[in-house]
Amino acid sequence: MKLIDQTINKIRPIDPIWIDAAKRRQLELTKPPGSLGRLEEVANRCAAIRESLLITAHRPRIVLFAADHGVCAEGVSAYPQEVTTQMLLNFLSGGAAINAFARSGSIELKVVDMGVIAPPAHSSDLISRRIGAGTRNFCAEPAMTEQEMSAALEAGIELAGDAATAGCDLVGFGEMGIGNTTSASAIAVALSGERVSAVTGSGADADDECMARKRSAIERAIALHGANLKNPLGVLQFVGGFEIAAMCGFCLGAAARRLPIVMDGFISTASAALAVRLCPALSGYLFAGHRSVEPGHAALLKIAGQQPLIDLGLRLGEGTGAALAINLMQAAVAAFTQMATFASAGVSNK
Amino acid sequence: MKLIDQTINKIRPIDPIWIDAAKRRQLELTKPPGSLGRLEEVANRCAAIRESLLITAHRPRIVLFAADHGVCAEGVSAYPQEVTTQMLLNFLSGGAAINAFARSGSIELKVVDMGVIAPPAHSSDLISRRIGAGTRNFCAEPAMTEQEMSAALEAGIELAGDAATAGCDLVGFGEMGIGNTTSASAIAVALSGERVSAVTGSGADADDECMARKRSAIERAIALHGANLKNPLGVLQFVGGFEIAAMCGFCLGAAARRLPIVMDGFISTASAALAVRLCPALSGYLFAGHRSVEPGHAALLKIAGQQPLIDLGLRLGEGTGAALAINLMQAAVAAFTQMATFASAGVSNK
Repeated sequence: MKLIDQTINKIRPIDPIWIDAAKRRQLELTKPPGSLGRLEEVANRCAAIRESLLITAHRPRIVLFAADHGVCAEGVSAYPQEVTTQMLLNFLSGGAAINAFARSGSIELKVVDMGVIAPPAHSSDLISRRIGAGTRNFCAEPAMTEQEMSAALEAGIELAGDAATAGCDLVGFGEMGIGNTTSASAIAVALSGERVSAVTGSGADADDECMARKRSAIERAIALHGANLKNPLGVLQFVGGFEIAAMCGFCLGAAARRLPIVMDGFISTASAALAVRLCPALSGYLFAGHRSVEPGHAALLKIAGQQPLIDLGLRLGEGTGAALAINLMQAAVAAFTQMATFASAGVSNK
Repeated sequence: MKLIDQTINKIRPIDPIWIDAAKRRQLELTKPPGSLGRLEEVANRCAAIRESLLITAHRPRIVLFAADHGVCAEGVSAYPQEVTTQMLLNFLSGGAAINAFARSGSIELKVVDMGVIAPPAHSSDLISRRIGAGTRNFCAEPAMTEQEMSAALEAGIELAGDAATAGCDLVGFGEMGIGNTTSASAIAVALSGERVSAVTGSGADADDECMARKRSAIERAIALHGANLKNPLGVLQFVGGFEIAAMCGFCLGAAARRLPIVMDGFISTASAALAVRLCPALSGYLFAGHRSVEPGHAALLKIAGQQPLIDLGLRLGEGTGAALAINLMQAAVAAFTQMATFASAGVSNK
């Protein structure tokens, strides 16, 4: 856990002095004060994160973490478990929604195998940080060991470090893993205290019977592991997933490197909420890409301390909501850094 | 009015057969059905507009129309009227928010002088379609003559034709004109029957006294021109603006060329609402870029038959909301046309 503690210790709260400096700069730009709405807040916070008014957002990267979930044995998903590996191959051949979004938005995409059941053949485009062939069924035992959790967290931290070292100035993250809305709902229950029924949705089209099994699985897991769910690392180890742990580490690692971090939807926000509970200062580095239709998303967004930038009824994951939001954030940063001032453009102010 | 009638006659309602064909295609793509939410509707409607499943959105263009307004004599704006020309120069030198957004989003931007008070010196980047040195004060007389209105409408139609001829596959439009929220609010009153106070906002930061003058100006204009505001062309001529007429024509011209059209905010939607009243089939070609904070926007969006894609508290105009939405629409079209199918990618369906 040494790397994890070191990483958390590096994360400082964003400094309101930089927010104020950015706000003053916004007032000089050729637009009515506040007329870019929430995009001004986005740019101001990016400035505070980077501790500079000369910010950029032209090297965005999305890291997409895939893993399988033992809880699928409980019949919690409408899709068979082999779809995780099939979609991993789809990501590598460029045929998934996130590939189309990333190409359309000129966003670099990195695909990570954190532990799917059947690892694909070697591919130079795949980053393999496998912890195992999927987690264990958390209705019967902890999803992973403490060692597995640490390794997954460290993988996420290291992948964030890789992004920073490569010169990325904005990162997003997403996931793929059949069964992982069940894990995210269990995390939402453990972190927020909400009832299972309030934070459990249909994920990828679970029907009524599937939904009943999903709610039952979460209820039983919470009952079984109750005493171990008092702290965020316990929640992560007992009802989390390899990709969820990696995303949690990715948030911590990116904040330690002072990068703005764009969450995707429900599962992504579950990871970020765990990271915020580990390190409350992280919240200032997070941006919520979009509002998922999953009912548990709101409780997790509240813990992460963020309001979504986009609300278009998406419920796909993969980082798709993060990709859309990254383009909006790039526009916000472009306006902040490229606009003329009233003085430089000779425009009369009020 | 011959070109206007010819243009309207060319606009056919989008065909539900194409919507259905697009929906069937969406079901084959490697994602849970409907999981891209409203972006699926965007892509489906683009397919219906283009009458093809092989759609593109890689040649977007935003046309930005500037003009001055005689109603400024009533003290309706917090900014002096010369700001319109100053901002026109700012657009040409690349220093405004829309320039930053267009560069960030790789969107072509065209700037049109429809009639600012003081025309800038010749610039190869400026399209001059000037109707006059601003409209007349519509509290005292019609904003423009019927001939001026026709010329402005025709300019918009021709600029849409230019975009189609240049190979653009998606167009947006925006505006600049000190005083033009007063015109747009008057249009909203005339088209929707709402009360002046319900559809009049603070525009570019009008204070309470300025707001009182603005509401009074609109009340007096509606009383003065009442009988002439029974039809959309009367509304446009008596309380509209040169840029508003041009944007109205732009919508009609773009729909006649079967282009998806992205509105910006309040004033832009006022133009589109007039165009929908002239030709109800136009509605199927429109997309609402964003939800403005101006209180009259909702009534105009209802007439245009559209729900905004973005809701971030913007109130700038210039096409900024359209620019953000265009990038979202490009992602929607990219997913629709580039994603693998369950069959082609070997992904198990439910």
